Amino acid sequence: MAEKEKMALVVFSGELDKALAAFNIAVTGAATGMEVTMYFTFWGLNIVRKEKAKGKPAGMMRRMLGMLNRGGASRARLSKFHMCGMGTWMMKKLMRQSKMPNLQEMITLAHQSGVKFVVCTTTMALQGLTEEAFIPEVKIFAGASTYLGEAREAKVNLFI
Amino acid sequence: MAEKEKMALVVFSGELDKALAAFNIAVTGAATGMEVTMYFTFWGLNIVRKEKAKGKPAGMMRRMLGMLNRGGASRARLSKFHMCGMGTWMMKKLMRQSKMPNLQEMITLAHQSGVKFVVCTTTMALQGLTEEAFIPEVKIFAGASTYLGEAREAKVNLFI
Amino acid sequence: MAEKEKMALVVFSGELDKALAAFNIAVTGAATGMEVTMYFTFWGLNIVRKEKAKGKPAGMMRRMLGMLNRGGASRARLSKFHMCGMGTWMMKKLMRQSKMPNLQEMITLAHQSGVKFVVCTTTMALQGLTEEAFIPEVKIFAGASTYLGEAREAKVNLFI
Repeated sequence: MAEKEKMALVVFSGELDKALAAFNIAVTGAATGMEVTMYFTFWGLNIVRKEKAKGKPAGMMRRMLGMLNRGGASRARLSKFHMCGMGTWMMKKLMRQSKMPNLQEMITLAHQSGVKFVVCTTTMALQGLTEEAFIPEVKIFAGASTYLGEAREAKVNLFI
Repeated sequence: MAEKEKMALVVFSGELDKALAAFNIAVTGAATGMEVTMYFTFWGLNIVRKEKAKGKPAGMMRRMLGMLNRGGASRARLSKFHMCGMGTWMMKKLMRQSKMPNLQEMITLAHQSGVKFVVCTTTMALQGLTEEAFIPEVKIFAGASTYLGEAREAKVNLFI
Repeated sequence: MAEKEKMALVVFSGELDKALAAFNIAVTGAATGMEVTMYFTFWGLNIVRKEKAKGKPAGMMRRMLGMLNRGGASRARLSKFHMCGMGTWMMKKLMRQSKMPNLQEMITLAHQSGVKFVVCTTTMALQGLTEEAFIPEVKIFAGASTYLGEAREAKVNLFI
């Protein structure tokens, strides 16, 4: 049996529009028979964090950062026209009207299609986050060398 | 005859600086014998929209979005130092002084070099845009699977 | 002897978080035996500019742009939560606490690992910068066709 073609996406951004693009490409790749890995790093961690995580990171600065930088797919904002929430709200409503899946549904869809979610351990250490802070779909916690192992074999590499 | 090497660029951003980088890489690729596809998605659609399109999208929210998010290459702004237009104006003037082609000229140049422009139909549906809203250089309107078909065969894949 | 696998990174952004991600991937690539090229273009030039460069670019507009757009790795800001410097300062402090190398140290590390730094001559002309404006680790000044020569042979291509 021929080996599957691979795709490796770095999800650096935590913004709604970029996350939607990333998941759209990932799900399409999986649907056309590719083996897809999404590597969440830096602000991208927010996309796969639980909305309500128990416990707080140790240290005042991490807690302050945690208050600003709240996780959870439903909190993701547009990179443009967020407008105190109104633009993001409108975009979500338009997506619903157009019968497009929202970000949480895209995450479920990607997971069900076999897309692998990997969370960057360097960012976790920086933000003081533990594995419990993430949605159960995330199974792998690893560093840049694990990502590069996938990327070297991938036909499609993108930094989003 | 050997097949041409391919390049597939996702143009996600509608910003002037990123668009210039994308077209610069695309035109250079075409000049060195590559077969280049630019896939315009999300804010990237603005780059290849007509300045003045007839008709308005249906629905109040799409019309509001349309007023904020106006299309046309000449309206693209810098991602930094836009400063109510002054920074973008200065950058354009500097480019002219340095005898560099502006974005509209880059679009023409890319088209003449055989670069293929593909517009994302998912974004079109979301924003309520029809094929008439785009410059005539755009010949293909397609979804992510068409993009991925090109990307899987491409030597150079970038998300811009 | 087998040829080394290649990686070509376009560093378009001048922001601290994206630069850290770029150098992290570059250094990891070099550590696992890859031949890595970083191509600094547009705002990315700031990352490899000297903190204090002698002389000023010719022309009033270039000088104004130069005052806004100051170079040097230590001046790079977060793309989010910069908050007049406080967020960036906090992030740097957190990195130090977590015993992570800062951006300047990553640049040195990358250089020592054999990562090639290439600066985009088109951007240099635009901003009126000469080779003296850059840190000594930068040895190559070239245009997009030099970048594409590397990218076409690279296993991993990213636009950051």
